[in-house]
Amino acid sequence: MSSDPKTEPLNRRRFLGAAGLAGAGLAASALPLRAQEAKPDPLITEVQDWNRYLGEGVDKRPYGTPSPFEKHIVRRDVSWLTASPDSSVNFTPLHELDGIITPSGLCFERHHGGIAEIDPANHRLMIHGLVDKPLVFTMEDIRRMPRQNHVHFLECAANSGMEWRGAQLNGCQFTHGMIHNVMYTGVPLKLLLAEAGLKPSAKWLMLEGADASGMNRSLPVEKALDDVLIAFAMNGEALRPEQGYPLRAVVPGWEGNIWVKWLRRIEAGDKPWQAREETSKYTDLLADGRSRRYTFIMDAKSVVTNPSPQAPLKHKGRNVLSGLAWSGRGTIKRVDVTLDGGKNWQSARIDGPVLEKSLTRFYVDFDWAGQELLIQSRAMDSTGYVQPTKDELRKVRGVNSIYHNNGIQTWHVRSNGETENVEIA
Amino acid sequence: MSSDPKTEPLNRRRFLGAAGLAGAGLAASALPLRAQEAKPDPLITEVQDWNRYLGEGVDKRPYGTPSPFEKHIVRRDVSWLTASPDSSVNFTPLHELDGIITPSGLCFERHHGGIAEIDPANHRLMIHGLVDKPLVFTMEDIRRMPRQNHVHFLECAANSGMEWRGAQLNGCQFTHGMIHNVMYTGVPLKLLLAEAGLKPSAKWLMLEGADASGMNRSLPVEKALDDVLIAFAMNGEALRPEQGYPLRAVVPGWEGNIWVKWLRRIEAGDKPWQAREETSKYTDLLADGRSRRYTFIMDAKSVVTNPSPQAPLKHKGRNVLSGLAWSGRGTIKRVDVTLDGGKNWQSARIDGPVLEKSLTRFYVDFDWAGQELLIQSRAMDSTGYVQPTKDELRKVRGVNSIYHNNGIQTWHVRSNGETENVEIA
Repeated sequence: MSSDPKTEPLNRRRFLGAAGLAGAGLAASALPLRAQEAKPDPLITEVQDWNRYLGEGVDKRPYGTPSPFEKHIVRRDVSWLTASPDSSVNFTPLHELDGIITPSGLCFERHHGGIAEIDPANHRLMIHGLVDKPLVFTMEDIRRMPRQNHVHFLECAANSGMEWRGAQLNGCQFTHGMIHNVMYTGVPLKLLLAEAGLKPSAKWLMLEGADASGMNRSLPVEKALDDVLIAFAMNGEALRPEQGYPLRAVVPGWEGNIWVKWLRRIEAGDKPWQAREETSKYTDLLADGRSRRYTFIMDAKSVVTNPSPQAPLKHKGRNVLSGLAWSGRGTIKRVDVTLDGGKNWQSARIDGPVLEKSLTRFYVDFDWAGQELLIQSRAMDSTGYVQPTKDELRKVRGVNSIYHNNGIQTWHVRSNGETENVEIA
Repeated sequence: MSSDPKTEPLNRRRFLGAAGLAGAGLAASALPLRAQEAKPDPLITEVQDWNRYLGEGVDKRPYGTPSPFEKHIVRRDVSWLTASPDSSVNFTPLHELDGIITPSGLCFERHHGGIAEIDPANHRLMIHGLVDKPLVFTMEDIRRMPRQNHVHFLECAANSGMEWRGAQLNGCQFTHGMIHNVMYTGVPLKLLLAEAGLKPSAKWLMLEGADASGMNRSLPVEKALDDVLIAFAMNGEALRPEQGYPLRAVVPGWEGNIWVKWLRRIEAGDKPWQAREETSKYTDLLADGRSRRYTFIMDAKSVVTNPSPQAPLKHKGRNVLSGLAWSGRGTIKRVDVTLDGGKNWQSARIDGPVLEKSLTRFYVDFDWAGQELLIQSRAMDSTGYVQPTKDELRKVRGVNSIYHNNGIQTWHVRSNGETENVEIA
């Protein structure tokens, strides 16, 4: 499904200071209560159709789908980013979700040769190269090995990448939606490598997919022996086709491109492969023309999902600010939120499981009297790392890269509740 | 989708002792490795179609669905339990799932007047009765109140209820599949009640649904003020229609029938309502003809999901035994497993998050040489409660009830790997 998020000249929405802001004092205001309305509400006083007539029975939807009233909640691509849909990306509708689990049907997709459709009976995983015993596993072989369950975020290195030079895309689905968070079930890669017997000279592994692009990346052996899973299930059921069915790599905390999907081959070697995806792509071009390479880890980052440009404020009075924070280096320790462009900060309420290398949900319950807001969130992780501003990041990394932009996002809420992607100097 | 699980005369599969068992000694056996086969595997040596041709692009599945190779993994009803599909039940395919999250599309359903299809803009929740200020909330009102996320199991009181008199249904989907485990997002009921102001005389609440059956149950105020959520989201997205969209009660650890779906009304009173669902239904008929009523809490229970009748053993050598345990009184502390009908027990490996009133996943990694097995699991919760045998339960509760059967399940694995629901004396 395509959409056309507003694309405007760079810096069009850059604010010079927080001049538009009505001030930080937020008036308390009572919840409008229908019971206090003068005339009776027919939705209460009259019997409704759904209370009068029998609905569909239990045998109608053997595999369920969302309500038709939710059909606008979908992954979306961006037309000007999608020259060819079989080598493109779509985005998770973060502003419509809650908690920390992304439903499998809404996990953003990125592929390079379209979605490989593989019969699991015909899928094989080969391990070879610098090993004592080259091996080939069937899916049934893998499913008979000891398995684990872990919840992890997967973030594309290019998430927020269109924002390096200024505020550009008007919606957190597009600025931050190349991320999802899933409970994976799989076999630790170290167990598969132990079967094959890694030779001492093996320092890197090459992971390769079975898709039409034969997508491949080099993975250091230390990470492979640490926490990498070879996963066959997500959120309890089989991987979705667009997420690598029947088998993918799960590389906790590291950029999504290395989580190779439709995984068919692991080769052990003594150096990285210099694959296309780690030389011409997925390197960080710096201001002086040099490139950072093998920048695997996704640093701490956060985004306010509500309000946001696709989810404006609609009511004065009480409101819920909701957002997500994550770190590839551990757990989220704290999230601070400002409503006035940085004059005042408060610690958000973190709710729900706080897991390693996982999305973490935060809330600020606040009253809104209709004044303009400049909203930001700032994540801090278990290593003490604090999410930087975009300008702090640009000082170190320039503006040439499209990868690893974890700068602080700003939303401007107007007095009518409409919300826009901006930057403040 | 209907199926016809084998229905046989009661006690048909009851074993007298464990005479069929080949003994508890389990021989170690190597994983069959394809690399050791004599002839090359063309699935490795030849380029496959999915590696040769581009697949579907990112804009094809805006809300994703499982692989066509997984289309047999669905909720199923049981024809002889489904006189009318709009007042019936279907079952979660537990033997096809892993981890602790049930995908929303596979959560078992039970309803009494079909699936109410409600436009959330037209849904109202009324709170009245023994309150200071009767209130009506819209969905937007509710979504602006402070919310929380919790993972909880929902188990129908009748889960395993067809097994009271003996082994009957051949598959854990049917013996134990009236359970699912979901991350809910919602507003604590105590916050809604605080808005309305509960009078001191209010001791019970009546929860009522907006469906064609107007399903209702009485809930003690103490539970309402403890951990009940009024939820609008499950697994990150809106509730599914068959799970009460747009609003349901989440009553952690208590029988599913009281988790009222399509929730439209909460009335505060000084005693229970004696509703149909708590008098003629959802009471436990004892051997002496008396009934236990308001038996809300689901006690500790477990089931081995793999192997099981729908998921037989297929390979000698290493195998994974997988199962689920839960308790309505707290967390799961330990799960013991026997492979020889109770002669020898071992503690299972508990994996993944261990949460309050949530499904907990356990595994036993074992080798199988082809001998017959009698597999049982036994859960222990954080209160020290130990899951009873079916016979221990029958001594106290008789065999007239169809509710609250948490007895230990037995699977008989034959030497060809086929697995059957049995009981051992």
